[in-house]
Amino acid sequence: MDRQMALVAFLQAQNCSNYPASWRHPATMQDYLSPEYYQRIARVLEAGRFHLAFFDDRLALPDLYGASHEEAVRHGIRVVKMDLVPILTAMGLATRCLGLGATYSTTYYEPFHVARVFATLDHMLGGRVAWNVVTSLNDSEARNMSLAQHLPHDERYDRADEFMEVVLGHWDSWEDGAILHDRESGTFADPAKVHRLDHQGRYFRSRGPFTVPRTPQGRPVLIQAGQSGRGQRFAARWGELVFVIYPSLEIGRGVYRAFKEQVAAAGRDPARVRVCPAVYAVVAESRGMAEEKLALIEGLAKPIDGLALLSEVLNYDFSRKGMDEPFSDEELAAIQGLRAIRDRVVRLSGKRNPTVRDFMRYSARGTVREFPLFLGTPRDVADQMEEWFAGEACDGFVLAATHIPGAYEDFVRLAVPELQRRGLFRRDYAGPTLRENLGLPRAEIGDWRLPCG
Amino acid sequence: MDRQMALVAFLQAQNCSNYPASWRHPATMQDYLSPEYYQRIARVLEAGRFHLAFFDDRLALPDLYGASHEEAVRHGIRVVKMDLVPILTAMGLATRCLGLGATYSTTYYEPFHVARVFATLDHMLGGRVAWNVVTSLNDSEARNMSLAQHLPHDERYDRADEFMEVVLGHWDSWEDGAILHDRESGTFADPAKVHRLDHQGRYFRSRGPFTVPRTPQGRPVLIQAGQSGRGQRFAARWGELVFVIYPSLEIGRGVYRAFKEQVAAAGRDPARVRVCPAVYAVVAESRGMAEEKLALIEGLAKPIDGLALLSEVLNYDFSRKGMDEPFSDEELAAIQGLRAIRDRVVRLSGKRNPTVRDFMRYSARGTVREFPLFLGTPRDVADQMEEWFAGEACDGFVLAATHIPGAYEDFVRLAVPELQRRGLFRRDYAGPTLRENLGLPRAEIGDWRLPCG
Repeated sequence: MDRQMALVAFLQAQNCSNYPASWRHPATMQDYLSPEYYQRIARVLEAGRFHLAFFDDRLALPDLYGASHEEAVRHGIRVVKMDLVPILTAMGLATRCLGLGATYSTTYYEPFHVARVFATLDHMLGGRVAWNVVTSLNDSEARNMSLAQHLPHDERYDRADEFMEVVLGHWDSWEDGAILHDRESGTFADPAKVHRLDHQGRYFRSRGPFTVPRTPQGRPVLIQAGQSGRGQRFAARWGELVFVIYPSLEIGRGVYRAFKEQVAAAGRDPARVRVCPAVYAVVAESRGMAEEKLALIEGLAKPIDGLALLSEVLNYDFSRKGMDEPFSDEELAAIQGLRAIRDRVVRLSGKRNPTVRDFMRYSARGTVREFPLFLGTPRDVADQMEEWFAGEACDGFVLAATHIPGAYEDFVRLAVPELQRRGLFRRDYAGPTLRENLGLPRAEIGDWRLPCG
Repeated sequence: MDRQMALVAFLQAQNCSNYPASWRHPATMQDYLSPEYYQRIARVLEAGRFHLAFFDDRLALPDLYGASHEEAVRHGIRVVKMDLVPILTAMGLATRCLGLGATYSTTYYEPFHVARVFATLDHMLGGRVAWNVVTSLNDSEARNMSLAQHLPHDERYDRADEFMEVVLGHWDSWEDGAILHDRESGTFADPAKVHRLDHQGRYFRSRGPFTVPRTPQGRPVLIQAGQSGRGQRFAARWGELVFVIYPSLEIGRGVYRAFKEQVAAAGRDPARVRVCPAVYAVVAESRGMAEEKLALIEGLAKPIDGLALLSEVLNYDFSRKGMDEPFSDEELAAIQGLRAIRDRVVRLSGKRNPTVRDFMRYSARGTVREFPLFLGTPRDVADQMEEWFAGEACDGFVLAATHIPGAYEDFVRLAVPELQRRGLFRRDYAGPTLRENLGLPRAEIGDWRLPCG
């Protein structure tokens, strides 16, 4: 079989899509507190044979800008954030093959809990579940979760490595065939096939045995999005589906190649790691129609969207500065949070001391230019996707929505058939589990341990 | 309207019902890793107009007996324990009015997380959700969750009180009508109606604002099961549906009256607290058939069931002693865990130093005699329930299952119509939310705060 692309939808359990202005779109559905909203999206994605729908998460609403939640609440900038487990379940029960992924932070939960949640989901949804591993980012979350401030960047990843060992260790603790269900002899399971973990590490202790048997796909698929040096090493070590943000195709090619080498250097098979950049797509029956759609969409954004989100992601209150006031060297050096964004703004603006306006323009935070945007007819969009995919910049795409559910309806009805016609995208699911659909073998016990580990 | 009883099903997300031997029953379904298993139960309960299905939980499998999980795993003694959130969601999506409750410990999670999980569920399931608040019990759980050993008994409850203040505080933080959804002006919500909690206590810090709007029933219903002195005070302070275990009707009457007085003393209206004892029921078309059913059910139990569970609940390894060896005064004094069970065994056996056999006999742990058992024809069972209910020993019942789903099918088809005929149980749901069905008003912001608090 020729290489085919993976398609992943990038969802949020909130009042807007990844694009904060999307709730202002006339065709956006507003019933995001109900299961029907998510089930509707799931059915559309399954009709389009998407591999996976995955959800972002945050344990806080934006409230660093002006040291208040007022602007975010007024303008609807990602203020609702619901727990993802009920939502994944609802979507899974409305579909049969669509993979379903949820973000869960390694910072605020015990690994035993996270292992149990995702193992339960993987049973309940017949082996279609993925866990998006994140180490949490900012002070707003820490303040909701009893921590005074966030752990330093690198320590977060050391802790996360240990977290993964505990979670995957628990997932491995029931062998296949452990359960016997023999009512005659009263033998429920073979004790020789159920193991304790006995983990005692620097950050966690967890003894086991785990309380959930081995799941249909062996274990849930791991999604990772680490972008910085230490985060990328973490992604190369653990990620099976790796979510990236490329500012351009050229940069993407280099990052893709380097990352695959990093995966190989970590002792893993790069062919078993799917790298998918986030993109928006605006597709319509004609180029003119697509441009009008995009104009309407972009017209919904407000400057406050970007300022509030930049404040969160960089852990810095952007209301402290005027639009054209530059950041001093000290201020730039003090920025915590996603440093990749700061570095990108410095690079793209060509300024050593960019201003607030530069941050807005070159990060494009809160706009549909934050990710590459594919625009036009089905052929135009397929051309661009083919260029990225065939050009060895990615193994598929994470499609963010300009509005909900319209962006996915358009893509599934217009772009997917064109991708299928070109043989770039499959016409049907390979099987019921997410691993099958991603072309990954069922997970084996211990296959995640490194030879030298 | 005359006083009518509440009916609650007592469920487990595991390989057996509350009765560990139930998996050995020839008619027990074994697909407990699938949503269908739970949805089937939910539909039966809704057909029987049950108020609520609520789930027990434990973050460990029994492994104190013989310092190993071997016996529990071999005999299937509550070894599977799945996360409850996907299960509640699946049941909720298969029903329209049935209330759904899940246990979540105050010991191992952050209150912000628990608040978000239950608020999300309450939205997703249209205001039908209850949280069973527990403070966790034993070392097996602690060892899975990075704690070396369990918190002392009373400190657990102090921490739990603060936990409740944070959870309920967050649930109150979005006023009704906060969300505007005004696309024209771009106003999503009224910032004056969304509040920060700013909690800084002894055990927790949580700032807010919370990320989930006020839920359909104002907030989820609170279930509590505290039995000891400090635990009972906690239940009187917070519980709306209180789950109890009465060894007999006579004792139940006294406990019920004393508890209602304790609720009043805590500054709350006792009429708004439903007290429901756990019972088993074995009902059949004739008394002889019921007796044969029970004989089959009781014949499934093994001594190891009780020994393994006693070890867990008392945090003591019962394999250390012979069956007829008495516990010394020092050993009895050292028993942690549910001391009410130890005290009951001492009282009922009439011995200062009971033996292992006494513990098994008088606790009846792991058998269907652990709770009162109503046996016979529909009229027999209704007579017994009426005696308890009309005799002011309870406001309803928590019905545990001898086997799944048969115990509920029998009860719904045989006993429920007889209870309805007598006017003891309603013929239909009062409305879509659990509070409506329990006869409780929609929760108001701040109504849980004590006048002096």
